Amino acid sequence: MTPEQIMVDVAIANWKLTIKRATSLFDGLTDKQFFQHIAPGRNRVIYLLGHLTAVHDAMLPLLGLGERQHAELDNAFITTPDGGIESLPSVADLKRYWNEINSLLLEKFVALTPEQWLERHTAMTDEDLVKDPTRNRLSVFLNRTNHTAFHLGQLVLAREKK
Amino acid sequence: MTPEQIMVDVAIANWKLTIKRATSLFDGLTDKQFFQHIAPGRNRVIYLLGHLTAVHDAMLPLLGLGERQHAELDNAFITTPDGGIESLPSVADLKRYWNEINSLLLEKFVALTPEQWLERHTAMTDEDLVKDPTRNRLSVFLNRTNHTAFHLGQLVLAREKK
Repeated sequence: MTPEQIMVDVAIANWKLTIKRATSLFDGLTDKQFFQHIAPGRNRVIYLLGHLTAVHDAMLPLLGLGERQHAELDNAFITTPDGGIESLPSVADLKRYWNEINSLLLEKFVALTPEQWLERHTAMTDEDLVKDPTRNRLSVFLNRTNHTAFHLGQLVLAREKK
Repeated sequence: MTPEQIMVDVAIANWKLTIKRATSLFDGLTDKQFFQHIAPGRNRVIYLLGHLTAVHDAMLPLLGLGERQHAELDNAFITTPDGGIESLPSVADLKRYWNEINSLLLEKFVALTPEQWLERHTAMTDEDLVKDPTRNRLSVFLNRTNHTAFHLGQLVLAREKK
Protein backbone atom coordinates (compact mmCIF):
# COMPACT_ATOMS: atom_id res chain seq x y z
CA MET A 1 0.00 0.00 0.00
CA THR A 2 1.32 3.49 -0.83
CA PRO A 3 1.97 6.01 1.99
CA GLU A 4 -0.77 8.28 0.67
CA GLN A 5 -3.28 5.41 0.60
CA ILE A 6 -2.45 4.52 4.22
CA MET A 7 -2.96 8.18 5.17
CA VAL A 8 -6.36 8.23 3.46
CA ASP A 9 -7.29 5.02 5.26
CA VAL A 10 -6.31 6.56 8.60
CA ALA A 11 -8.50 9.60 7.92
CA ILE A 12 -11.45 7.42 6.91
CA ALA A 13 -11.01 5.19 9.99
CA ASN A 14 -11.09 8.30 12.16
CA TRP A 15 -14.28 9.56 10.46
CA LYS A 16 -15.96 6.14 10.82
CA LEU A 17 -15.12 5.97 14.52
CA THR A 18 -16.57 9.43 15.12
CA ILE A 19 -19.76 8.67 13.18
CA LYS A 20 -20.11 5.36 15.02
CA ARG A 21 -19.83 7.06 18.40
CA ALA A 22 -22.47 9.65 17.45
CA THR A 23 -24.80 7.02 16.02
CA SER A 24 -24.50 4.83 19.14
CA LEU A 25 -25.30 7.86 21.24
CA PHE A 26 -28.41 8.73 19.21
CA ASP A 27 -29.51 5.08 19.28
CA GLY A 28 -29.18 4.99 23.07
CA LEU A 29 -31.45 7.98 23.77
CA THR A 30 -35.19 7.83 24.37
CA ASP A 31 -37.46 9.97 22.18
CA LYS A 32 -38.00 12.24 25.16
CA GLN A 33 -34.25 12.82 25.53
CA PHE A 34 -34.10 14.25 22.01
CA PHE A 35 -36.11 17.20 23.30
CA GLN A 36 -33.74 17.85 26.20
CA HIS A 37 -31.31 20.75 26.06
CA ILE A 38 -27.64 19.79 26.26
CA ALA A 39 -27.23 22.56 28.87
CA PRO A 40 -29.65 25.21 30.16
CA GLY A 41 -30.64 27.55 27.34
CA ARG A 42 -28.52 25.68 24.77
CA ASN A 43 -29.44 23.49 21.79
CA ARG A 44 -31.69 20.47 22.09
CA VAL A 45 -30.44 17.04 21.01
CA ILE A 46 -32.91 16.93 18.08
CA TYR A 47 -31.44 20.20 16.79
CA LEU A 48 -27.89 18.83 16.89
CA LEU A 49 -29.00 15.63 15.11
CA GLY A 50 -30.65 17.71 12.38
CA HIS A 51 -27.68 20.08 12.25
CA LEU A 52 -25.09 17.32 11.83
CA THR A 53 -27.28 15.59 9.24
CA ALA A 54 -27.67 18.80 7.19
CA VAL A 55 -23.95 19.60 7.38
CA HIS A 56 -23.03 16.07 6.26
CA ASP A 57 -25.61 16.20 3.47
CA ALA A 58 -23.99 19.42 2.24
CA MET A 59 -20.64 17.59 2.00
CA LEU A 60 -21.96 15.76 -1.08
CA PRO A 61 -21.95 18.80 -3.41
CA LEU A 62 -19.12 20.55 -1.54
CA LEU A 63 -16.80 17.60 -2.19
CA GLY A 64 -18.19 17.04 -5.70
CA LEU A 65 -19.60 13.64 -4.70
CA GLY A 66 -23.28 14.10 -5.55
CA GLU A 67 -26.48 16.05 -5.10
CA ARG A 68 -28.04 17.12 -1.81
CA GLN A 69 -30.47 14.53 -0.45
CA HIS A 70 -32.17 16.72 2.16
CA ALA A 71 -31.50 20.39 1.42
CA GLU A 72 -34.82 21.13 3.16
CA LEU A 73 -33.06 20.57 6.51
CA ASP A 74 -30.90 23.70 6.19
CA ASN A 75 -33.66 26.13 7.12
CA ALA A 76 -34.54 24.37 10.37
CA PHE A 77 -31.05 23.22 11.41
CA ILE A 78 -28.44 25.56 9.93
CA THR A 79 -29.94 28.96 9.07
CA THR A 80 -32.33 29.13 12.01
CA PRO A 81 -31.20 28.66 15.63
CA ASP A 82 -32.89 26.03 17.79
CA GLY A 83 -36.40 27.04 18.82
CA GLY A 84 -36.97 29.25 15.77
CA ILE A 85 -39.00 26.68 13.82
CA GLU A 86 -42.13 25.15 15.34
CA SER A 87 -42.54 22.05 13.22
CA LEU A 88 -39.46 19.85 12.87
CA PRO A 89 -39.10 16.46 11.14
CA SER A 90 -39.66 13.49 13.48
CA VAL A 91 -36.75 11.98 15.40
CA ALA A 92 -37.30 8.71 13.51
CA ASP A 93 -37.03 10.46 10.13
CA LEU A 94 -33.94 12.43 11.17
CA LYS A 95 -32.22 9.28 12.42
CA ARG A 96 -33.00 7.59 9.11
CA TYR A 97 -31.59 10.53 7.12
CA TRP A 98 -28.50 10.57 9.36
CA ASN A 99 -27.80 6.90 8.63
CA GLU A 100 -28.60 7.13 4.92
CA ILE A 101 -26.43 10.19 4.31
CA ASN A 102 -23.48 8.79 6.26
CA SER A 103 -23.72 5.48 4.36
CA LEU A 104 -23.80 7.30 1.04
CA LEU A 105 -20.84 9.49 2.03
CA LEU A 106 -18.77 6.52 3.15
CA GLU A 107 -19.44 4.73 -0.13
CA LYS A 108 -18.14 7.80 -1.98
CA PHE A 109 -15.16 8.29 0.35
CA VAL A 110 -13.76 4.78 -0.01
CA ALA A 111 -14.00 5.08 -3.82
CA LEU A 112 -11.77 8.18 -3.99
CA THR A 113 -8.11 7.76 -4.90
CA PRO A 114 -5.44 9.63 -2.88
CA GLU A 115 -5.03 12.00 -5.85
CA GLN A 116 -8.76 12.77 -5.74
CA TRP A 117 -8.56 13.48 -2.02
CA LEU A 118 -6.05 16.21 -2.84
CA GLU A 119 -8.22 17.87 -5.47
CA ARG A 120 -9.87 21.14 -4.56
CA HIS A 121 -13.36 21.19 -3.10
CA THR A 122 -16.06 22.87 -5.20
CA ALA A 123 -16.11 26.12 -3.17
CA MET A 124 -12.51 26.78 -4.30
CA THR A 125 -11.04 27.93 -7.62
CA ASP A 126 -8.03 26.21 -9.23
CA GLU A 127 -6.07 29.38 -8.48
CA ASP A 128 -6.83 29.16 -4.77
CA LEU A 129 -5.51 25.60 -4.72
CA VAL A 130 -2.23 26.62 -6.34
CA LYS A 131 -1.78 29.26 -3.63
CA ASP A 132 -2.57 26.80 -0.88
CA PRO A 133 -2.50 23.09 -1.78
CA THR A 134 -3.78 22.11 1.68
CA ARG A 135 -7.29 23.45 0.85
CA ASN A 136 -8.56 20.21 -0.68
CA ARG A 137 -11.13 17.45 -0.10
CA LEU A 138 -9.06 15.92 2.69
CA SER A 139 -8.95 19.26 4.49
CA VAL A 140 -12.76 19.56 4.44
CA PHE A 141 -13.02 15.93 5.53
CA LEU A 142 -10.80 16.35 8.62
CA ASN A 143 -12.59 19.60 9.42
CA ARG A 144 -15.99 17.91 9.28
CA THR A 145 -14.76 15.00 11.42
CA ASN A 146 -13.79 17.58 14.04
CA HIS A 147 -17.15 19.29 13.68
CA THR A 148 -18.90 16.02 14.51
CA ALA A 149 -16.57 15.45 17.49
CA PHE A 150 -17.26 19.02 18.68
CA HIS A 151 -21.01 18.41 18.84
CA LEU A 152 -20.53 14.88 20.18
CA GLY A 153 -18.84 16.46 23.19
CA GLN A 154 -22.10 18.36 23.75
CA LEU A 155 -24.40 15.43 22.99
CA VAL A 156 -22.87 13.21 25.69
CA LEU A 157 -24.15 15.77 28.21
CA ALA A 158 -27.71 14.71 27.37
CA ARG A 159 -27.06 11.18 28.59
CA GLU A 160 -27.86 10.23 32.15
CA LYS A 161 -24.98 10.85 34.52
CA LYS A 162 -23.39 7.62 35.71
CA MET B 1 5.43 18.73 -2.77
CA THR B 2 4.65 15.00 -2.54
CA PRO B 3 1.04 13.87 -1.98
CA GLU B 4 1.98 12.42 1.41
CA GLN B 5 3.62 15.71 2.47
CA ILE B 6 0.47 17.64 1.50
CA MET B 7 -1.61 15.18 3.53
CA VAL B 8 0.62 15.67 6.57
CA ASP B 9 0.36 19.44 6.14
CA VAL B 10 -3.44 19.18 6.02
CA ALA B 11 -3.48 17.18 9.26
CA ILE B 12 -1.15 19.65 10.98
CA ALA B 13 -3.22 22.65 9.77
CA ASN B 14 -6.29 20.98 11.22
CA TRP B 15 -4.55 20.40 14.57
CA LYS B 16 -3.29 24.00 14.68
CA LEU B 17 -6.75 25.39 14.00
CA THR B 18 -8.26 23.30 16.79
CA ILE B 19 -5.55 24.30 19.29
CA LYS B 20 -5.94 27.93 18.29
CA ARG B 21 -9.68 27.85 18.88
CA ALA B 22 -9.22 26.26 22.31
CA THR B 23 -6.46 28.70 23.28
CA SER B 24 -8.56 31.72 22.20
CA LEU B 25 -11.41 30.38 24.27
CA PHE B 26 -9.24 29.93 27.39
CA ASP B 27 -7.74 33.40 26.87
CA GLY B 28 -11.22 34.94 26.67
CA LEU B 29 -12.47 33.58 30.00
CA THR B 30 -12.19 35.31 33.36
CA ASP B 31 -10.52 33.45 36.23
CA LYS B 32 -13.95 33.02 37.78
CA GLN B 33 -15.27 31.33 34.64
CA PHE B 34 -12.62 28.60 34.98
CA PHE B 35 -14.46 27.44 38.08
CA GLN B 36 -17.82 27.24 36.32
CA HIS B 37 -19.26 23.88 35.31
CA ILE B 38 -19.85 23.42 31.57
CA ALA B 39 -23.31 22.05 32.47
CA PRO B 40 -24.97 21.29 35.83
CA GLY B 41 -23.04 18.52 37.60
CA ARG B 42 -20.48 18.24 34.79
CA ASN B 43 -16.77 19.13 34.60
CA ARG B 44 -15.48 22.59 35.39
CA VAL B 45 -13.50 24.54 32.79
CA ILE B 46 -10.30 24.28 34.86
CA TYR B 47 -10.63 20.50 34.84
CA LEU B 48 -10.95 20.38 31.06
CA LEU B 49 -7.94 22.70 30.65
CA GLY B 50 -5.89 20.42 32.91
CA HIS B 51 -7.25 17.29 31.21
CA LEU B 52 -6.40 18.48 27.68
CA THR B 53 -2.96 19.62 28.85
CA ALA B 54 -2.19 16.26 30.47
CA VAL B 55 -3.42 14.29 27.43
CA HIS B 56 -1.32 16.42 25.07
CA ASP B 57 1.71 16.09 27.36
CA ALA B 58 1.30 12.31 27.20
CA MET B 59 1.49 12.49 23.38
CA LEU B 60 5.22 13.21 23.69
CA PRO B 61 6.24 9.70 24.85
CA LEU B 62 3.29 8.00 23.09
CA LEU B 63 4.49 9.32 19.73
CA GLY B 64 8.16 8.83 20.62
CA LEU B 65 8.80 12.57 20.53
CA GLY B 66 10.15 13.19 24.02
CA GLU B 67 9.70 12.94 27.76
CA ARG B 68 6.65 14.00 29.76
CA GLN B 69 6.87 17.61 30.92
CA HIS B 70 4.05 17.51 33.50
CA ALA B 71 3.26 13.91 34.39
CA GLU B 72 2.10 15.24 37.78
CA LEU B 73 -1.11 16.47 36.08
CA ASP B 74 -2.40 12.94 35.41
CA ASN B 75 -3.56 12.33 38.95
CA ALA B 76 -5.69 15.48 39.15
CA PHE B 77 -6.92 15.59 35.55
CA ILE B 78 -6.99 12.07 34.10
CA THR B 79 -7.15 9.44 36.84
CA THR B 80 -9.38 11.40 39.21
CA PRO B 81 -12.72 12.90 38.14
CA ASP B 82 -13.36 16.62 38.64
CA GLY B 83 -13.93 17.51 42.28
CA GLY B 84 -11.86 14.60 43.61
CA ILE B 85 -8.72 16.64 44.31
CA GLU B 86 -8.89 19.71 46.57
CA SER B 87 -5.75 21.53 45.56
CA LEU B 88 -5.26 22.08 41.83
CA PRO B 89 -2.52 24.03 40.01
CA SER B 90 -3.45 27.68 39.36
CA VAL B 91 -5.25 28.67 36.17
CA ALA B 92 -2.23 30.81 35.20
CA ASP B 93 0.14 27.83 35.57
CA LEU B 94 -2.17 25.50 33.64
CA LYS B 95 -2.51 28.02 30.81
CA ARG B 96 1.27 28.31 30.68
CA TYR B 97 1.72 24.50 30.56
CA TRP B 98 -0.97 24.30 27.86
CA ASN B 99 0.89 26.79 25.65
CA GLU B 100 4.34 25.32 26.33
CA ILE B 101 3.31 21.74 25.62
CA ASN B 102 1.45 22.64 22.44
CA SER B 103 4.42 24.68 21.19
CA LEU B 104 6.79 21.80 21.90
CA LEU B 105 4.47 19.31 20.17
CA LEU B 106 4.10 21.50 17.09
CA GLU B 107 7.87 21.84 16.83
CA LYS B 108 8.17 18.03 16.86
CA PHE B 109 5.24 17.50 14.45
CA VAL B 110 6.57 19.77 11.70
CA ALA B 111 9.96 18.02 11.89
CA LEU B 112 8.52 14.54 11.16
CA THR B 113 8.74 13.18 7.62
CA PRO B 114 5.68 11.52 6.05
CA GLU B 115 7.41 8.15 6.56
CA GLN B 116 7.81 8.90 10.27
CA TRP B 117 4.12 9.80 10.54
CA LEU B 118 3.36 6.28 9.36
CA GLU B 119 5.56 4.58 11.93
CA ARG B 120 3.87 2.87 14.82
CA HIS B 121 3.25 4.70 18.07
CA THR B 122 5.08 3.40 21.13
CA ALA B 123 2.07 1.59 22.61
CA MET B 124 2.10 -0.78 19.60
CA THR B 125 4.37 -3.65 18.63
CA ASP B 126 5.83 -3.99 15.12
CA GLU B 127 3.59 -7.04 14.70
CA ASP B 128 0.46 -5.00 15.44
CA LEU B 129 1.46 -2.54 12.76
CA VAL B 130 1.86 -5.26 10.15
CA LYS B 131 -1.65 -6.47 10.97
CA ASP B 132 -3.08 -2.98 10.71
CA PRO B 133 -0.89 -0.32 9.06
CA THR B 134 -3.37 2.44 9.94
CA ARG B 135 -2.38 2.28 13.65
CA ASN B 136 0.45 4.77 13.39
CA ARG B 137 1.47 8.25 14.61
CA LEU B 138 -0.92 9.93 12.19
CA SER B 139 -3.79 7.89 13.56
CA VAL B 140 -3.07 9.00 17.14
CA PHE B 141 -2.67 12.57 15.91
CA LEU B 142 -6.09 12.70 14.19
CA ASN B 143 -7.64 11.00 17.20
CA ARG B 144 -6.18 13.59 19.58
CA THR B 145 -7.31 16.45 17.32
CA ASN B 146 -10.83 15.06 17.63
CA HIS B 147 -10.43 14.73 21.38
CA THR B 148 -9.63 18.43 21.63
CA ALA B 149 -12.60 19.30 19.40
CA PHE B 150 -14.85 17.08 21.57
CA HIS B 151 -13.99 19.03 24.73
CA LEU B 152 -14.00 22.35 22.86
CA GLY B 153 -17.67 21.67 22.10
CA GLN B 154 -18.19 21.53 25.87
CA LEU B 155 -15.96 24.48 26.70
CA VAL B 156 -17.91 26.90 24.50
CA LEU B 157 -20.87 26.29 26.83
CA ALA B 158 -18.98 28.14 29.57
CA ARG B 159 -18.95 31.34 27.55
CA GLU B 160 -21.67 33.92 28.03
CA LYS B 161 -24.66 33.33 25.78
CA LYS B 162 -24.89 35.91 23.01
